Amino acid sequence: GMTLLDRRSDKRTDFNWLSKKQIHPTTVYILFSNLSPLVTLGGGIESSQQPEVKLCRLYHKDVKQYLNQTEEVTLIFLGVELQFHMNLPAAHNGRVLKEDEEDGLIAWFALSIDPTSAQKFKQTHEDCYFLHPPVPALLQLPEKEAGVVAQARSVLAWHSRYQFCPTCGSATKIEEGGYKKTCLKEDCPSLHGVHNTSYPRVDPVVIMQVIHPDGNHCLLGRQKRFPPGMFTCLAGFVEPGETIEDAVRREVEEEAGVKVGHVQYVCCQPWPMPSSLMIGCLAVAVSTEIKVDKKEIEDARWFTREQVVDVIIKGNQRSFFVPPSRAIAHQLIKHWIGMNA
Amino acid sequence: GMTLLDRRSDKRTDFNWLSKKQIHPTTVYILFSNLSPLVTLGGGIESSQQPEVKLCRLYHKDVKQYLNQTEEVTLIFLGVELQFHMNLPAAHNGRVLKEDEEDGLIAWFALSIDPTSAQKFKQTHEDCYFLHPPVPALLQLPEKEAGVVAQARSVLAWHSRYQFCPTCGSATKIEEGGYKKTCLKEDCPSLHGVHNTSYPRVDPVVIMQVIHPDGNHCLLGRQKRFPPGMFTCLAGFVEPGETIEDAVRREVEEEAGVKVGHVQYVCCQPWPMPSSLMIGCLAVAVSTEIKVDKKEIEDARWFTREQVVDVIIKGNQRSFFVPPSRAIAHQLIKHWIGMNA
Ligand SMILES: Nc1ncnc2c1ncn2[C@@H]1O[C@H](COP(=O)(O)O)[C@@H](O)[C@H]1O
Ligand SMILES: Nc1ncnc2c1ncn2[C@@H]1O[C@H](COP(=O)(O)O)[C@@H](O)[C@H]1O
Repeated sequence: GMTLLDRRSDKRTDFNWLSKKQIHPTTVYILFSNLSPLVTLGGGIESSQQPEVKLCRLYHKDVKQYLNQTEEVTLIFLGVELQFHMNLPAAHNGRVLKEDEEDGLIAWFALSIDPTSAQKFKQTHEDCYFLHPPVPALLQLPEKEAGVVAQARSVLAWHSRYQFCPTCGSATKIEEGGYKKTCLKEDCPSLHGVHNTSYPRVDPVVIMQVIHPDGNHCLLGRQKRFPPGMFTCLAGFVEPGETIEDAVRREVEEEAGVKVGHVQYVCCQPWPMPSSLMIGCLAVAVSTEIKVDKKEIEDARWFTREQVVDVIIKGNQRSFFVPPSRAIAHQLIKHWIGMNA
Repeated sequence: GMTLLDRRSDKRTDFNWLSKKQIHPTTVYILFSNLSPLVTLGGGIESSQQPEVKLCRLYHKDVKQYLNQTEEVTLIFLGVELQFHMNLPAAHNGRVLKEDEEDGLIAWFALSIDPTSAQKFKQTHEDCYFLHPPVPALLQLPEKEAGVVAQARSVLAWHSRYQFCPTCGSATKIEEGGYKKTCLKEDCPSLHGVHNTSYPRVDPVVIMQVIHPDGNHCLLGRQKRFPPGMFTCLAGFVEPGETIEDAVRREVEEEAGVKVGHVQYVCCQPWPMPSSLMIGCLAVAVSTEIKVDKKEIEDARWFTREQVVDVIIKGNQRSFFVPPSRAIAHQLIKHWIGMNA
């Protein structure tokens, strides 16, 4: 699997457990400022490979000065390390622990600090920096760490944009390890029953490799804000009341004027800008004429399989290029090349 | 296709077009009160079939008294009828229309009125009623109409729960045919850049048919609030930073203690309670012992393929039953029965 942590959502309401883990010396903290994670350059230098960006793993001693400033910091419980979980001796596994016995689980927290504290922190930790801007830098993280950052950044972005109750406009308080927000106004309707206003938002987005009816071309487009020469799969938000397949058809027709028939799910990727779930599909076009909607994209073209193989496999990026290999668009394009090749 | 309307999101910002369509005699209005759509019983009586629940299609003349009460009513532009769109004479298709020329498109709007007006309306339209409670009644609507209701109800539910700006707590105004909310406070950070606080929420949910390692049993569960005897697929919200596949594995382990390996997407369904996108998957279990989390569900059991065939195909509901055929859970279960059968 590609996950680093078991989220252990059952622990989110276990205040005692969370408090103990916060001060435990093995607990890992990852630090954020302005939604950017603290990272360092790892490994590569000696090993003559490209240096790799890695999350800085901090400990209670490194962050304890922030933990009581509850006004300026936000703390999110991310889960426990899977590694240990797997190696747990069978005897221990089912047994109920005594009150004070340690469960040995290594907890992870995300901690967001204010910009001034962040500035000071960097001065005392010279090999670390806050990854900024997040795109495309997020795509340089190792896949497992990217998942943890996606989780942490999405929840933190939710707290920064959703500080007030959307139902009544009052202030809210954070609960359940960072995964719940409760309105502070006693008679607010959001307190009766379960409402999504209390839970983090995840926005489903469709992203699609559109295949020409001849099977040998694909449709890639570009937005004005892209670096020159970059083309990628079309994408758009799923609307209320819409299926994934209908969203694919609507977006391709809206953005490029191309009609799509069959749609097939391929894979997905969380994308924490701020909290999207990218749902990757193959889409078979049933028309070929392109009419670009200039409000949404700048250009869209049919590329031949050969052109795409040149860019993706041979790395020949003279005529155009696509997003890096950890981007879902890259994976979708590659998936298509691999099909009936 | 199963869609009735082309959403025509380009028209949402065309204030003139929307105003003209609002008063056009062919424009269709569907009415809501308290998030319940106005319906009637159709067809069935003469034809000796089961009576079918159908949306009431109203016209400008039926609703014009509400359209100016902008305080108490909410109006959502849903799209234009696809039917006509398809039959559009080719000559007309590309040609630019003259200023006052009609485009012939049949627009649909959802209109939500206050409970008192709703009460009065029902008194003058005796064959109509507001579909309540919505579940399981929503599953009795014809599939195409269910899609329109899903769209309308999700957007209306968003307006009813998200009246205030979550970023600053101020009041908001509705724009773009009902698909956008803008904060009224001049210096609110939500007005700089594009933020999801302005757009309707869609909550991705995974729902999964879990298959026993032997291939001949599936895992179904029930919640306390279900009618006695009903079992269905497990389900749960996708969390921030999580893939669909990981969400399936996490939910099955949390709710039933069963470990899942391979996960395969099957199909999806919008579910407007209030605004979910149900993502249906097959999940292959790699463990078999069930440990029910009583906080989430009341019971979960392995059912044999034979038992499920009995219920779904032969309609023998003595021992247990599953949701009706228009529910995605039903479709997932049926899909599994059809596999390697
Ligand atoms: N967007 C959401 N809307 C409602 N409940 C949520 C959401 N996200 C997570 N939850 C949790 O899911 C539970 C309801 O799940 P369910 O019983 O499957 O409807 C709630 O009690 C919450 O703890
Ligand atoms: N949840 C959402 N978050 C941000 N933009 C949205 C959302 N839903 C719809 N939109 C629209 O999608 C546009 C941005 O799309 P994109 O360029 O693909 O990021 C915005 O200008 C909005 O009109």
